[in-house]
Amino acid sequence: MNKVVTFGEIMLRLSTESHLRFEQAKGFTATYGGGEFNVAVSLANYGIDAEFVTRVPNNEIGMCAVKEMRKMNVASQNVLFGGDRLGIYYLETGAGSRASNVVYDRAHSAMASLEKGMIDWKKIFKGATWFHWSGITPAISDSAAKACLEAVKAAHELGLTISCDLNYRSKLWQYGKTPAEVMPELLHFTNVILGDIDTAFFMLGQAKVNPDYQDTNSLPVVYDRLFDWCPNLKTMATTLRYSVSASHQRIGGILYDKKAIYNSVVREATPVVDRVGSGDAFMGALIYGLISQPNNKQRIVDFSVAACSLKHSIAGDYNLVTLKEVENMIDGDGSALVSR
Amino acid sequence: MNKVVTFGEIMLRLSTESHLRFEQAKGFTATYGGGEFNVAVSLANYGIDAEFVTRVPNNEIGMCAVKEMRKMNVASQNVLFGGDRLGIYYLETGAGSRASNVVYDRAHSAMASLEKGMIDWKKIFKGATWFHWSGITPAISDSAAKACLEAVKAAHELGLTISCDLNYRSKLWQYGKTPAEVMPELLHFTNVILGDIDTAFFMLGQAKVNPDYQDTNSLPVVYDRLFDWCPNLKTMATTLRYSVSASHQRIGGILYDKKAIYNSVVREATPVVDRVGSGDAFMGALIYGLISQPNNKQRIVDFSVAACSLKHSIAGDYNLVTLKEVENMIDGDGSALVSR
Amino acid sequence: MNKVVTFGEIMLRLSTESHLRFEQAKGFTATYGGGEFNVAVSLANYGIDAEFVTRVPNNEIGMCAVKEMRKMNVASQNVLFGGDRLGIYYLETGAGSRASNVVYDRAHSAMASLEKGMIDWKKIFKGATWFHWSGITPAISDSAAKACLEAVKAAHELGLTISCDLNYRSKLWQYGKTPAEVMPELLHFTNVILGDIDTAFFMLGQAKVNPDYQDTNSLPVVYDRLFDWCPNLKTMATTLRYSVSASHQRIGGILYDKKAIYNSVVREATPVVDRVGSGDAFMGALIYGLISQPNNKQRIVDFSVAACSLKHSIAGDYNLVTLKEVENMIDGDGSALVSR
Amino acid sequence: MNKVVTFGEIMLRLSTESHLRFEQAKGFTATYGGGEFNVAVSLANYGIDAEFVTRVPNNEIGMCAVKEMRKMNVASQNVLFGGDRLGIYYLETGAGSRASNVVYDRAHSAMASLEKGMIDWKKIFKGATWFHWSGITPAISDSAAKACLEAVKAAHELGLTISCDLNYRSKLWQYGKTPAEVMPELLHFTNVILGDIDTAFFMLGQAKVNPDYQDTNSLPVVYDRLFDWCPNLKTMATTLRYSVSASHQRIGGILYDKKAIYNSVVREATPVVDRVGSGDAFMGALIYGLISQPNNKQRIVDFSVAACSLKHSIAGDYNLVTLKEVENMIDGDGSALVSR
Amino acid sequence: MNKVVTFGEIMLRLSTESHLRFEQAKGFTATYGGGEFNVAVSLANYGIDAEFVTRVPNNEIGMCAVKEMRKMNVASQNVLFGGDRLGIYYLETGAGSRASNVVYDRAHSAMASLEKGMIDWKKIFKGATWFHWSGITPAISDSAAKACLEAVKAAHELGLTISCDLNYRSKLWQYGKTPAEVMPELLHFTNVILGDIDTAFFMLGQAKVNPDYQDTNSLPVVYDRLFDWCPNLKTMATTLRYSVSASHQRIGGILYDKKAIYNSVVREATPVVDRVGSGDAFMGALIYGLISQPNNKQRIVDFSVAACSLKHSIAGDYNLVTLKEVENMIDGDGSALVSR
Amino acid sequence: MNKVVTFGEIMLRLSTESHLRFEQAKGFTATYGGGEFNVAVSLANYGIDAEFVTRVPNNEIGMCAVKEMRKMNVASQNVLFGGDRLGIYYLETGAGSRASNVVYDRAHSAMASLEKGMIDWKKIFKGATWFHWSGITPAISDSAAKACLEAVKAAHELGLTISCDLNYRSKLWQYGKTPAEVMPELLHFTNVILGDIDTAFFMLGQAKVNPDYQDTNSLPVVYDRLFDWCPNLKTMATTLRYSVSASHQRIGGILYDKKAIYNSVVREATPVVDRVGSGDAFMGALIYGLISQPNNKQRIVDFSVAACSLKHSIAGDYNLVTLKEVENMIDGDGSALVSR
Repeated sequence: MNKVVTFGEIMLRLSTESHLRFEQAKGFTATYGGGEFNVAVSLANYGIDAEFVTRVPNNEIGMCAVKEMRKMNVASQNVLFGGDRLGIYYLETGAGSRASNVVYDRAHSAMASLEKGMIDWKKIFKGATWFHWSGITPAISDSAAKACLEAVKAAHELGLTISCDLNYRSKLWQYGKTPAEVMPELLHFTNVILGDIDTAFFMLGQAKVNPDYQDTNSLPVVYDRLFDWCPNLKTMATTLRYSVSASHQRIGGILYDKKAIYNSVVREATPVVDRVGSGDAFMGALIYGLISQPNNKQRIVDFSVAACSLKHSIAGDYNLVTLKEVENMIDGDGSALVSR
Repeated sequence: MNKVVTFGEIMLRLSTESHLRFEQAKGFTATYGGGEFNVAVSLANYGIDAEFVTRVPNNEIGMCAVKEMRKMNVASQNVLFGGDRLGIYYLETGAGSRASNVVYDRAHSAMASLEKGMIDWKKIFKGATWFHWSGITPAISDSAAKACLEAVKAAHELGLTISCDLNYRSKLWQYGKTPAEVMPELLHFTNVILGDIDTAFFMLGQAKVNPDYQDTNSLPVVYDRLFDWCPNLKTMATTLRYSVSASHQRIGGILYDKKAIYNSVVREATPVVDRVGSGDAFMGALIYGLISQPNNKQRIVDFSVAACSLKHSIAGDYNLVTLKEVENMIDGDGSALVSR
Repeated sequence: MNKVVTFGEIMLRLSTESHLRFEQAKGFTATYGGGEFNVAVSLANYGIDAEFVTRVPNNEIGMCAVKEMRKMNVASQNVLFGGDRLGIYYLETGAGSRASNVVYDRAHSAMASLEKGMIDWKKIFKGATWFHWSGITPAISDSAAKACLEAVKAAHELGLTISCDLNYRSKLWQYGKTPAEVMPELLHFTNVILGDIDTAFFMLGQAKVNPDYQDTNSLPVVYDRLFDWCPNLKTMATTLRYSVSASHQRIGGILYDKKAIYNSVVREATPVVDRVGSGDAFMGALIYGLISQPNNKQRIVDFSVAACSLKHSIAGDYNLVTLKEVENMIDGDGSALVSR
Repeated sequence: MNKVVTFGEIMLRLSTESHLRFEQAKGFTATYGGGEFNVAVSLANYGIDAEFVTRVPNNEIGMCAVKEMRKMNVASQNVLFGGDRLGIYYLETGAGSRASNVVYDRAHSAMASLEKGMIDWKKIFKGATWFHWSGITPAISDSAAKACLEAVKAAHELGLTISCDLNYRSKLWQYGKTPAEVMPELLHFTNVILGDIDTAFFMLGQAKVNPDYQDTNSLPVVYDRLFDWCPNLKTMATTLRYSVSASHQRIGGILYDKKAIYNSVVREATPVVDRVGSGDAFMGALIYGLISQPNNKQRIVDFSVAACSLKHSIAGDYNLVTLKEVENMIDGDGSALVSR
Repeated sequence: MNKVVTFGEIMLRLSTESHLRFEQAKGFTATYGGGEFNVAVSLANYGIDAEFVTRVPNNEIGMCAVKEMRKMNVASQNVLFGGDRLGIYYLETGAGSRASNVVYDRAHSAMASLEKGMIDWKKIFKGATWFHWSGITPAISDSAAKACLEAVKAAHELGLTISCDLNYRSKLWQYGKTPAEVMPELLHFTNVILGDIDTAFFMLGQAKVNPDYQDTNSLPVVYDRLFDWCPNLKTMATTLRYSVSASHQRIGGILYDKKAIYNSVVREATPVVDRVGSGDAFMGALIYGLISQPNNKQRIVDFSVAACSLKHSIAGDYNLVTLKEVENMIDGDGSALVSR
Repeated sequence: MNKVVTFGEIMLRLSTESHLRFEQAKGFTATYGGGEFNVAVSLANYGIDAEFVTRVPNNEIGMCAVKEMRKMNVASQNVLFGGDRLGIYYLETGAGSRASNVVYDRAHSAMASLEKGMIDWKKIFKGATWFHWSGITPAISDSAAKACLEAVKAAHELGLTISCDLNYRSKLWQYGKTPAEVMPELLHFTNVILGDIDTAFFMLGQAKVNPDYQDTNSLPVVYDRLFDWCPNLKTMATTLRYSVSASHQRIGGILYDKKAIYNSVVREATPVVDRVGSGDAFMGALIYGLISQPNNKQRIVDFSVAACSLKHSIAGDYNLVTLKEVENMIDGDGSALVSR
């Protein structure tokens, strides 16, 4: 059986209910999430053996995050305890023409003060076949970036497949380095990348090219440039998001494997219950597809888009859907009738 | 004044709030409902004298169901107390491309162990002019099917109009008989049927015909076959449901009285607050129409479609709308402006 | 700095959650609002020095209303305490084809028993440049109408700009006088009016004309008749509302300054979280625009329409949005992406 | 079977949860109650045929009150619809040394504008054996006082037993008459009175005597004076309340029938979930006792004290307990073990 | 490290909030619990490797129970999926003189239809040192009793220590056998029993003796009789509960090991947040004590009483306290000051 | 009129409801509080002109804190915006023998990075007569300690009365200095101190003396030593807390003015709704007493103890009671009857 290890930060998410603004809320719904953890949950839901590696403070709030991992069937036995605090993000869910609003309070977190050498990757990777990281970890602190590189190198040495969701966040990268100084070495070892082309170019220190994702002739050319810079890259996928309003999104996707472009149908996501984590839902589905049916590239991108689209109907950070629910969406008529 | 008696099971409905999945919910909203009870509530709301006959366990949860009947102005004086438990169904309300999900826990209910002879139908039908049952009761157990037949025969003998909502549920019919073995005799005495043609054909043990509901020429021909098999049938109606997504339904309807086809305008129901019970809302409106203005068939089907459509905006099983609200929908411009 | 004084009633609003009907609700969400207070909150949110003058009962519920003013940064030092009760309105928020429903319980309120002479307007208007009232105050009682006229006259004498939202409510005006007997004198002193043409004609005792708001040729002619009857009128604006359903509104707007007609783009508001107070959001934005950039009429009407449209995504009576959020809506692409 | 008619006002009760102060509450729990309605609910719970007569506004909020009556199995078919509004009271439940706080907003209610002649008492009293009123109705308005007298006289003429809970509320009696001007005539026809001696003396226009309820020698003498002034009086009962704190009450009771004094054991009520309506719980139990076992006076007062005490554990205005629960309290050991 | 396996039923618990009665509740708080699962949670909280074996239906509600196990760090890999339904119990939490009320709806559960041979105990017991069962499993059905005996025998053969909480429930044992027909063989193999003496006597088919738990002279004599009948018995413990009211309990405990009686201090539990599961809290602590410090019998009983007492402050079925919290209670002054 | 300026940190408080443990909570109730802010709220409630000076981050969460100040009628115009984050504390409210639990997440807050020179105290103190600080501010960071000293010196120079609540928190003081290195200079300028004697001794670098607060002979001697070390000290008060359990506290107090000892009656606080902030309630009442009736020392300490005791019945950090409510407690019988 395949075992996937994902690595990143888990945060306490404090969100208002019923589209309330922060100042209207009497309280916050508390859940726990973070890009790489969300990927692990998706994989566990699809039946993959998933483990999440992170660092949380050694207090009751850190334990709440660990209990969430357990409940979601994500292995947590290598989670480190230490540091000052669990990172937080406050979320106000928008509606119609009002966007959702995220206020980060993740500075000085346990994960931000993680340092190279704290984690015994050799032990963790025993029996694992896949390692997933994202562009968030190298963005939070210099020491986290170094710890991430350590992990990527160890995974590469041990022959694991390495995937990365680029996940560029302009509000991060505050510690004095630019993505172009940090990401190229990390991406050098990476085999699967999820992200749009211009984000990748930017992180690799290249000028943006504003590609036309509908032009299947020109598209391979620009993707190929990424493959040139990332010698281990085998698969690159891009989520296409068309935002009609905060309550109505259209989701498409592209997968390129240096041989061909695979385009999925565009799906409507309306009304949007919660779009946070929909990119992670795509990523989790992509890894699942590449593991379970590596040769059916069209199915992989269709599965990823369906999973991403379905996530918009789920509250919370991660995609609480079963394999069967995603497959029904691809194979069915989309009428979403009551099952009874 | 007309008095309508409806007969069937009432269940405790445990639903999650705010589109949460079962595992996310800290608790359940508790309401009480069931197809035939929902019909009785619609009738009571429209000013008809309605009574509901069922069997509930002799404990506090059974009493909660009775108190719901009372509150809704549905007479409950002939409800039987006994049996093991009140049936339950768990409901997770979908959104967008995610369907609602129902988990039944209705086996071994008080109603499933109801037996022929337990109910004094002669006493109950005193003063009544209409009896309503549905295809759910004969589907839950052999003894319930027999008790249902006893009721239908008694109603027929006493000259009541008998209506039935076919309500086929594939998850029921687990006790060893097929619909075709049970339903024909029950439908034999029935004067008004709500259901689609193929469900009726199936329940009568006939091959499905996949009728074209838009073809008003061919449609009477297939409806007529039903009238042939059901000698007491006077009116047959069909709800037409077009499902865009879990949050967007389109509702139409057809009524046929052996003389003419009456087609209603198709109405948009979006966003869907709760679609459970929308068929019962159609049924309740249909009975109301046939009682209150029997000669205006077009108005009856328009009223039924409007009531069904409006139900999608109401949380819970039954249609909490007034006669005036449904009539405003038919006669108004649909703009749904604030009344103030 | 500009200081705006608004004057009117503040009510306790008791609304059901999650589209529940009154009889389904276990309780009510309690907020405080009212047309003219809502305008003051909008102005405070945009950085204008705003004060609200009203009368509330001298009990804990009256104090709750005052605390809401304070929280919203609306000056409340001249609020009067007295009278029997705080007016209430019950609100059931509709969905889809079901309209929202308001039940008023505002008779005998502290504001309805306000009398001329109770308020020292000279003191209050010290330092103020703008006075806002609406058609609700003269509609609730004869004494309130007289108190309103006193305020309008005082504002006029002291050279303040006077604005009015016509706000016709057919359920009010129960005290024996018609709008045509009361409103003309009040509008005589008014410089800015928000309302549709036929409401204005009706309140001025004129026959309605059913104007075509799309016909920019004929429109100035009918607006001009209002300017003739209201000698101090400088600006007239109209909110155009197209109601697709209770959950989907389209909002446009027109501004006329006797020289030109300014038409804004029509904006979609869907799903509607809460449309109560959307007219007040337009009014608050209009005053802000006229104060902050009086010569950019097109921007003023665009800003007002954007603010009004955005209000539909906000729960509660008043428009909890920042200046920047409204401006982003005008200047952006409307995609409402998550800010992070 | 005995049928009891109770008559009085039903109000919407808006209470904060979890001991919150009004200004902390995001909303109110909504229930419906009132002294005489609460008595009817107690009686219905004990198996007595109970009807409540009142007047509510002809709107959705009035209908909510009627649905509460129905749910509680209290007959409501003679409830009048009319008037301006349903009376309200706001409740903040105290704890420890902080008292509960009630803010009344019941002026101008449908019941306050009830007038003599509106109710057909002859029809209502058909089949009834008991009529219950309280000192609240004559306290709310002159017309309500007159309507109350009309009812009492009709009941007397038709030979019903008449009971009254004195229920003195100093915040009422605002319409220009004192209790001493109104109550004597009403009490003249009354057969059962619940109240303390000094309240009765005060309402009868007599000087207070500050009786010693522990002194069973002197007590009959003062009770006898009441029997002299009220020629139809047969039974007088008094609830004895010792208030340790808002969360801890001690409840006793006395019954006097002109022959003997019956004293019950004093019961602890701690913690207090809700003490509003505990007097009504005593009254309802007293009527039940006098009807069901008129010759066992000791049991009657014990039953009344137990019911009153138990009410302190029930949220809301009325006493949601069964006959068996009260009897278990009298006959059991008070250990309140889980029943399973 | 020690590994403890517990075996029994897990149920969905549906409880009302804030002391509401069933008919007042708009919904239920949903948690999952059951005597033997609760013991496993206690052990996991104290750092013991705990596994729970049960059978749940193969649907979403069954999976919710499993996710609760995972979250609580109780191993669930041998849980069986099958059967009709998850058992339910409805809970209304009392206050003061009103007892809590439990309504069982556990008939026909997945666990009740468990049969001998379905579970591979040899595999499960690999590495385990302790097996815990309770008197509930043999009480729910004949097949469950047989499956329980199979487990007990397997544990005995493999040399595990076997513990049992007698847990007599009069509402169970409905399948045609009495405890005296079933329990003796099960207790024959049991090494540790929790229960009061007369319950043990009753289950062993002996006449009750009504022992005086304060009389340390006579007590060993009656305990010894149990040791005679149960040849493998090493330790017998009894929880002593003094019920002042539903909100105030006093908890003591006794341990007897055939050599000496160990009595703990009696602890006050007031106010009671939730007493369901407090016996299981005692049992879990008892096993922990016997494993971790087998020779300090006084500490074991003190620890068990402290854990049981602390449970009364915890909502839900199981005892969410840490080892340190229980130890602080024994070693501290009981002042329960805020930790900050 | 007197104006009091208080200075310190305001935090977001995230608390669980209904005594839930952190891991059971689906969310947190959000309020805003902090020792010195709580004092300001008490003063505002008693009619004193109160201002709070602090530093909050320039984001939506910081603005929520400011809106809380406004709502509570505490002037906020000199609040600084800047820094990384608003400090947080998580609170789990205990019950019975389970203590409340606080998890701090206040490191790196906006207030911790406040620096000397950022605040224009001369401007702020214009018109003020009293300055209040507490031992928390110098405990959170070196720069905050220096900023605090700057404030104290400015207040001293301008002749304000200076009060301090010692508020020792062992979890703070992590930045490398001990209280004895920092507090003496701050206390040198202080005129009123609230705290127990040994905390004061410890902060002044003296050995603890374990005084007997019941011995009114020896007590002045030890208090006098503090007066010797703090040359500006005029009044010293101590809250006496006897903790029966988390749900039952007893509160007393002592005031010493170098002339005499004033002892208040001890008050019961049970059940405890929320004891956080009860010390601040004492402090706020003490300042109010010293301002409003400086010569009635007995009344001052009685008022402070009553206010502190009453706070235990109020949810949230600050004491939401009126002057009248505290006075009623001193002058009344403590029976806490419903006011109606």
